[in-house]
Amino acid sequence: MQSPVERRIGDCQRRLERAGTSLLVCFPSPNMTYLTGFEESASERHLLLFVPRTGDPIVVAPTMYDQQLADVPIDDPSLEIRFWNDSDDPVAVIDGVLEELLGRGGADDSTATDETGDEPPAILVDDRMWATFTQDLRACVPDARFGLASDVLEDLRVRKDEIELDALRRAGQVADRVSLEIRSRGEDLLGMTEAELATEIERLLAAEGGGKPAFETIVASGPNGARPHHHSSDREIERGDPIVLDFGAFVDADLEAGTGRYPGDQTRTVVVGEPSAEYERVHEVVRQAQHAAVDAVEPGVTAAAIDRAARTTIEAAGYGDAFVHRTGHGVGLEVHEPPYIVEGNDRELESGMVFSVEPGVYLEGQFGVRIEDLVVVTEDGAERLNDSPRGWETGGTSQS
Amino acid sequence: MQSPVERRIGDCQRRLERAGTSLLVCFPSPNMTYLTGFEESASERHLLLFVPRTGDPIVVAPTMYDQQLADVPIDDPSLEIRFWNDSDDPVAVIDGVLEELLGRGGADDSTATDETGDEPPAILVDDRMWATFTQDLRACVPDARFGLASDVLEDLRVRKDEIELDALRRAGQVADRVSLEIRSRGEDLLGMTEAELATEIERLLAAEGGGKPAFETIVASGPNGARPHHHSSDREIERGDPIVLDFGAFVDADLEAGTGRYPGDQTRTVVVGEPSAEYERVHEVVRQAQHAAVDAVEPGVTAAAIDRAARTTIEAAGYGDAFVHRTGHGVGLEVHEPPYIVEGNDRELESGMVFSVEPGVYLEGQFGVRIEDLVVVTEDGAERLNDSPRGWETGGTSQS
Repeated sequence: MQSPVERRIGDCQRRLERAGTSLLVCFPSPNMTYLTGFEESASERHLLLFVPRTGDPIVVAPTMYDQQLADVPIDDPSLEIRFWNDSDDPVAVIDGVLEELLGRGGADDSTATDETGDEPPAILVDDRMWATFTQDLRACVPDARFGLASDVLEDLRVRKDEIELDALRRAGQVADRVSLEIRSRGEDLLGMTEAELATEIERLLAAEGGGKPAFETIVASGPNGARPHHHSSDREIERGDPIVLDFGAFVDADLEAGTGRYPGDQTRTVVVGEPSAEYERVHEVVRQAQHAAVDAVEPGVTAAAIDRAARTTIEAAGYGDAFVHRTGHGVGLEVHEPPYIVEGNDRELESGMVFSVEPGVYLEGQFGVRIEDLVVVTEDGAERLNDSPRGWETGGTSQS
Repeated sequence: MQSPVERRIGDCQRRLERAGTSLLVCFPSPNMTYLTGFEESASERHLLLFVPRTGDPIVVAPTMYDQQLADVPIDDPSLEIRFWNDSDDPVAVIDGVLEELLGRGGADDSTATDETGDEPPAILVDDRMWATFTQDLRACVPDARFGLASDVLEDLRVRKDEIELDALRRAGQVADRVSLEIRSRGEDLLGMTEAELATEIERLLAAEGGGKPAFETIVASGPNGARPHHHSSDREIERGDPIVLDFGAFVDADLEAGTGRYPGDQTRTVVVGEPSAEYERVHEVVRQAQHAAVDAVEPGVTAAAIDRAARTTIEAAGYGDAFVHRTGHGVGLEVHEPPYIVEGNDRELESGMVFSVEPGVYLEGQFGVRIEDLVVVTEDGAERLNDSPRGWETGGTSQS
């Protein structure tokens, strides 16, 4: 029986064939993890995965990764590995692999594709590949046409399989439990700095079974909340401050030995004590906008329509100019990935897609409000991956 | 008086001029931080810095960054900012900026360089720029010649100024204090898992004044130590295990409002109880190799000669095949950056360069030993940025 990553390699190769593409080249990135289960940070060392449209994929890697690569659950097709040492020239190794896979006079033509020597090869490179590596590939194959790996991988990755959904559900539950805990602390939050609360949230995420934070935990209090991507600061939380809390942790998916990680991503905006009347009004508007957008989710609806559902609600309340970002982003091996829930995106939703729904209103010098849940598109609607209370109340006040 | 980043922009522009290059384009990366103090994670949103060889630099950014970008300490030349909203097409904004800066029929030619319309422009892109963005730039300027930003920035960044050295020294002291603390715990380390110890090290780094870990903390015990980039696991530490501890935290540099971060990076290999005789022998070989390499550091010597100094010592002891990586890497805004201390690198060391010296021996199925300090090249030798004991002994045993 094929492992999940073997199945994915096969799906990828069939799509390369259909697209008339010679080769796909990945770099340490979510694409590489998706296709092999192998996870490593991007670095200056040449570590590339070559997936030809037929035949065995090849990894070029520094020798130091020999043991980790031996664990990759790919046996059929087999994963060939070409190591290089720090004293070797990795570009020469890559040049050899390209000659071999593109059938252009390499020593061993047995794995060559049916490219002719005359037709310029079409090569898809990882969307996140660093320019330093794409420059090397271009130097090795100057006449190639280059495209992006997402041309074939995006459609595969955008619909999550059961292994992925299971991990995303668990990540959502971890975030929910931390959200409840923080909210229950009420008055104890007063006097903490944003940075201290962010650290405490990350500690709780780990204690609740999460791994590393999926992104920089955002604690944005009072006027800092008007910056959607605020970096948690030394500002102390005061009574009546709206506090935007945006966080999540990765959890491992079991890809039968491979260990792709899937993130949680949830936002709540809470207040200790009593907020201003305007805050209460805006919070309610954002909550209604978030509900309207989630209610609009079903297969066949466009991503833009979901954005529109949230935006219409906020515009009707007079805060349209203060909703300065898109309504959401897809979530999977990447915290931000397709589908983007944004005006102009006519992509139709399909079951198995997972994305955030996170409208917000940002009032310069005053406060911000954002409410975010992840949702999965189901056969006839949406399943929320987060279900902690969405109100602003803290410290045991009744919640809705 | 110019701010540090204004000075750097000026240096960069003079080098662009000398190299006959039209434009440098950065992406959220250490290069962008170096030139502006602005720090943001790479993401799928178009956030690019354009530095023309003359005139004001331009940032293209999502509207949500308006407040952070207002804080960038660049007034002369002034930093122009072109915002785009999630509902705009950022590539159209970039196309307009390129037309303007390259003087090719944009509406406003007043800031155009002296490029003629006929000569293909030369554009340097950030070495870490994702392929998705370089593809956009290529589509906007199909006839441009593309190179890498490091062609002009590397020589600037490789010699650290006093602001940078101050941060690197503080980061070294943070790592030293944590190293001493862990070592003093002796028997208390037994039974902890590698992952637990890694978490504890990261907690101590923060408590000692460090920021985020500079890289994934490595705790590799017993046979796991034979993997140079081992991911800390659930393996419990036992008496007699060699334990490779490789860690460091970022500390902020004060770039007068900009906040570039500089890492610590130190490795020690310790044992609770008594190691094997072979371990003791290998540890001593690695320690001597590390001393030999640091002793060889002075301006004018090549990077390769430093690698050779370490390697010769290890080869002479019969472990040459087990030293599977280069001797070191430069350290600055990036944890790995030039100069690379590796065979074949004939670059001559200059005062102000900072790099790691970290020979290691890895014996499959048995153990690994690595000892690493950061050093600064001085006028006549090297200054070590780490000075905690380098022996294997723990728990208050006398150290050397």
